[in-house]
Amino acid sequence: MKPFNTQLHKAINEQSLRKVWEKANAYHNNTDLSLGNPVGLPPKKIINALIKILQSDMDEKFFGYINNAGIEQVRKIIAQDLIKQKIFPETLNHQHIVITTGASGAHSCIFKTIINPGDEVIVLKPFFPDFPRFIENHGGKVKYVELQEPNFKLNIEQINQAITSKTKAIIINSPNNPTGQIYSKTNLQKLARLLRKYQKNKNQTIFIISDEVYRDIVYQPYEFVSPCAFYDNSFMAYSFSKSLYIPGERIGYVAIHPDMIQADQVFEMLKLSNRILGFVNAPALMQRVFKNALPINFNLEDYQYKRDKLVDALTRADFDFVFPKGAFYILVKIPIDKNKFYQLLDQLELTVIPSEPFGIENYFRIAYCQNDQTIEDACQKIDKLSQLINQ
Amino acid sequence: MKPFNTQLHKAINEQSLRKVWEKANAYHNNTDLSLGNPVGLPPKKIINALIKILQSDMDEKFFGYINNAGIEQVRKIIAQDLIKQKIFPETLNHQHIVITTGASGAHSCIFKTIINPGDEVIVLKPFFPDFPRFIENHGGKVKYVELQEPNFKLNIEQINQAITSKTKAIIINSPNNPTGQIYSKTNLQKLARLLRKYQKNKNQTIFIISDEVYRDIVYQPYEFVSPCAFYDNSFMAYSFSKSLYIPGERIGYVAIHPDMIQADQVFEMLKLSNRILGFVNAPALMQRVFKNALPINFNLEDYQYKRDKLVDALTRADFDFVFPKGAFYILVKIPIDKNKFYQLLDQLELTVIPSEPFGIENYFRIAYCQNDQTIEDACQKIDKLSQLINQ
Repeated sequence: MKPFNTQLHKAINEQSLRKVWEKANAYHNNTDLSLGNPVGLPPKKIINALIKILQSDMDEKFFGYINNAGIEQVRKIIAQDLIKQKIFPETLNHQHIVITTGASGAHSCIFKTIINPGDEVIVLKPFFPDFPRFIENHGGKVKYVELQEPNFKLNIEQINQAITSKTKAIIINSPNNPTGQIYSKTNLQKLARLLRKYQKNKNQTIFIISDEVYRDIVYQPYEFVSPCAFYDNSFMAYSFSKSLYIPGERIGYVAIHPDMIQADQVFEMLKLSNRILGFVNAPALMQRVFKNALPINFNLEDYQYKRDKLVDALTRADFDFVFPKGAFYILVKIPIDKNKFYQLLDQLELTVIPSEPFGIENYFRIAYCQNDQTIEDACQKIDKLSQLINQ
Repeated sequence: MKPFNTQLHKAINEQSLRKVWEKANAYHNNTDLSLGNPVGLPPKKIINALIKILQSDMDEKFFGYINNAGIEQVRKIIAQDLIKQKIFPETLNHQHIVITTGASGAHSCIFKTIINPGDEVIVLKPFFPDFPRFIENHGGKVKYVELQEPNFKLNIEQINQAITSKTKAIIINSPNNPTGQIYSKTNLQKLARLLRKYQKNKNQTIFIISDEVYRDIVYQPYEFVSPCAFYDNSFMAYSFSKSLYIPGERIGYVAIHPDMIQADQVFEMLKLSNRILGFVNAPALMQRVFKNALPINFNLEDYQYKRDKLVDALTRADFDFVFPKGAFYILVKIPIDKNKFYQLLDQLELTVIPSEPFGIENYFRIAYCQNDQTIEDACQKIDKLSQLINQ
């Protein structure tokens, strides 16, 4: 008998975003565009609200266990916010919201709820590298479908071909990591129509899991559209990590469409999952200041400035990439031999993420959620890189 | 195809501690001895440390992602504390500690690391009701062995009989929930000797998973002994929930014995589990004040007072129970017909937990981590209960 989980034991030796990040920290003069770890602090009003709470006379159960689904009042505020954003209908309430440890926690609860061993979930390539793990943790099988190059749109025909009688869900991540693209309303409505056909003709429910962690980071003139707005059997996985600059604090939520099949039971299953998967509840203190956090009023200018600087540098250097519409990523084609390219990056101490963990070859991902100095250094290093490539 | 996970769908209709708790909140004049949700606030120095941090000039990455294993400096402090407590040898360091979302998160990471589908884990009855879920979430099978009544000691012979070639681990929870008992050094050393035989004779590694969340709550003259002190292949699952009165904040850790087989790889697997199970990292803000939290200096007097009051009331009422040595639970035998008994409790608005979710019939569990008024009310209601039973 093997003493450890075979798959996991293998996985610790695989390439990962985190390893690139950890290794890069060892450089002397590193310019780090690797992890989507936003530089910046949460809004002052949140910090002040935390201080105020901690200075007050707290109830004797203030730091105690809370409802596994999260604090009811906070779930009400979140429901109201989603209604105001016109993502969900007005029937949405706190019994459709489970507060989770970020979007990763949300995905885990969703997959625990819907997957029976052997069920299939469609993941679109390129993808956030933890999606397959989240699915496989619960005995699910990943079915990959490639996004349509060059613009990484949903390929409805290919999705249709990938659907089997075992298909349980499809993950949609828009704005997208790693492509920085946003799916159009037309594109998403075609998907919804396709899935509704399976419901109607085969009585097969195929859920959309809409990962919207970058929903608040969308640049003019592009527009974010949530599939939750027009597809009943949709789960939303959301995180405040990016919108409030608090990824270390682990706060997000699952929201379910109020017209989802057996919505009341789904809520109970998500809540129970949150407990038995070991989360128990998302950290409570941070939940308590959320009346001060919503609606999100995200300062886009800063990221747009950084995006534009990098887009200019990459264009000057004649790199191929799709113009980024949202999130804080740019996916760029490697113009020369891959090994040679990463040697040059090492030499320049410029850290990016190779695209292979995202399931696509010969690209690299830039995360520009960094401070101004890093962006400036990066642009200079891209100029140098271009010289080295073309010399 | 079923749209949801069959087991989970069934589980939402089962009796649970949480449901008893949630229902009890609806009583007008409820005396709640149900959940192990400690009444009380964390030490003032922790709250002050939080305020001080939030009022300081925080680094631009202060709320960012941290290492999946937790903040290195905090892991070092924890390792030092465990060495000082003489639980682990002096070779223990931060590469043996992974900070988790409480002990529940710790168990999830441990089972992800060691279980291949079909592996068996021994759980001692009565048990914390989420243990079987934690195991089954990762495809493990639960093998139950009864603790030896009347004192709920480890029955080494029965444990030996339950071991098969598939046995991967045994969970030890001392001080115990729900019995309030503590396993003696002799009893635990016998277990260690038994497991070492399997290693030596059959080359089968059987891990001890030592759940020590009540380690700091041990009453004189009893003494806590950790099996980690003398068994190399042991995982410790710990939580600060009880010791620091912060169950809502989700902070605990896994510690592994430095002489565990492949300890360096086990650390990497636990760390990766923390990420891919959706925890990513235990909430970071609370980790940052831990230099102010250790060593734990737990005020036992308060709980001891409450225990003694309830022990007196239960003794006056002629209930059968084993004298509680640690934690904040008393497991009491139901002296009459079960349904009649719970009707009387409903009538008195006294909430306790039926023992069936713990895997044992006809007992009830009292959690006395409540405020003084609740304990006083409980004692009066126990007196009344005794009158009603004996009238």
